[in-house]
Amino acid sequence: MATILPVADPADPRLDDYRDLTTADRRPDRPGGRGLVIAEGVVVVRRLLASPYPVRSLLGVPRRLDELAGDLSGVDVPAYAADADTMAAAVGFHLNRGVLAVADRAAPVDAGTLVRGARSVAVLEGVNDHENLGSLFRNAAALGVDGVLLGPRCADPLYRRSVRVSMGHVLRVPFAELTGAWPASLDVLRRAGLRVAALTPEPGAVPLATAGLGGHRVALLLGAEGPGLTDEALAAADLRVRIPMAPGVDSLNVATAAAVAFHAVGAVVS
Amino acid sequence: MATILPVADPADPRLDDYRDLTTADRRPDRPGGRGLVIAEGVVVVRRLLASPYPVRSLLGVPRRLDELAGDLSGVDVPAYAADADTMAAAVGFHLNRGVLAVADRAAPVDAGTLVRGARSVAVLEGVNDHENLGSLFRNAAALGVDGVLLGPRCADPLYRRSVRVSMGHVLRVPFAELTGAWPASLDVLRRAGLRVAALTPEPGAVPLATAGLGGHRVALLLGAEGPGLTDEALAAADLRVRIPMAPGVDSLNVATAAAVAFHAVGAVVS
Repeated sequence: MATILPVADPADPRLDDYRDLTTADRRPDRPGGRGLVIAEGVVVVRRLLASPYPVRSLLGVPRRLDELAGDLSGVDVPAYAADADTMAAAVGFHLNRGVLAVADRAAPVDAGTLVRGARSVAVLEGVNDHENLGSLFRNAAALGVDGVLLGPRCADPLYRRSVRVSMGHVLRVPFAELTGAWPASLDVLRRAGLRVAALTPEPGAVPLATAGLGGHRVALLLGAEGPGLTDEALAAADLRVRIPMAPGVDSLNVATAAAVAFHAVGAVVS
Repeated sequence: MATILPVADPADPRLDDYRDLTTADRRPDRPGGRGLVIAEGVVVVRRLLASPYPVRSLLGVPRRLDELAGDLSGVDVPAYAADADTMAAAVGFHLNRGVLAVADRAAPVDAGTLVRGARSVAVLEGVNDHENLGSLFRNAAALGVDGVLLGPRCADPLYRRSVRVSMGHVLRVPFAELTGAWPASLDVLRRAGLRVAALTPEPGAVPLATAGLGGHRVALLLGAEGPGLTDEALAAADLRVRIPMAPGVDSLNVATAAAVAFHAVGAVVS
């Protein structure tokens, strides 16, 4: 059972985790980075409490902590209760969601472990926008994708903005970095029995609807909006699929294209 | 051929259309609304110039106007050239896209005219978020949907934020308000020979992938994220379809769900 501890002084050192939120989520190997995982709002805090990330504490207005009472019953962490002004003074800006939680990062998941037994995964190259990455995780969660593999030049899914835009689903959908030489590192997928399907607007690619991915074990390889996948990544895929687009239209947003492809793979059994 | 006119004084009355951009896009029937259509950035300005909206003028830094020289060659409008500081002083905030264009609204399109001959359309109820609406138009354009019908409580697609998020596709994809009693007004679709398919997370709905929409003339009925479609709208549809979702996950963003459905309808012939 979490302990509710009223805090009236914004300078209280027990709130130190909540200062400089704009840098606290940086990875520990980056300047100022403490590698903290920050959840904002009742829905996302709830997902953090249910996640494997070790929660350090919560900070919220009493009304929001009350909403979380059921989620906090099995958790032994301090929950600091403060009014909105004290919270704003501690954090440095006004928060409109009324509750925050802070956790440590969990031990990294090994890519080989993640893909073993997975029905479908997403593999990302150069998806370096935190909002797109967060949206992609939200879509992966909704559409039943088992995990996300991060290739080169991807953003950090545990940045505050990614966590928020994902609605906390980065805390639920397992992810792992694909280390080693790229794109040779894709072999871990093939060794696990997954077909690597690259999503590309290339006219020569197979239309998604007729690629026959539904019901198969598939790794969907996705690049950033704009540049798309590199030639090396495309060459390393087992097949290339495309979403048919109207003439003269830019590509879809990467998270949106991913959702269309996730649905086509049909990971959620209807 | 557009005339390039250098402007050095931010108070120059020829720039009056560019003041108070945050209210200028309001519909003329709203407080302070002038009903102007505002395009920001080279890509969106280009789409405005190619649209049926009567362009009043452009305002940009010389480099951006140069990029648009080809698009401006057949257009007889003033293009005011200013430096970034003059632009910022006139507009009231700093713009990072370097070029704006302003147009008047075009005459409304009649819903009956829009749906005649359409292969697929989207019909919206209560989609009142400008960003979601803009994203939805972008997805409709990319995936070849012929038009968008606005039912009750929808946002205005011509607000600046919608125009920007749509990447200018609200200026390309025809839209019309569905006037008259809702949802009886959906009859205009049936009279035009379109099947009305409501997208809903209801477990009793038919999974999208097996609903057999591909290749048919379809009107996709979409509600806002969160509340979804009203019971009245659901009851008025010819069939109900759902995107299978993983347990315990909130709905997809409405524009993302729309993209998945647009792809399933298969409006773009691959």
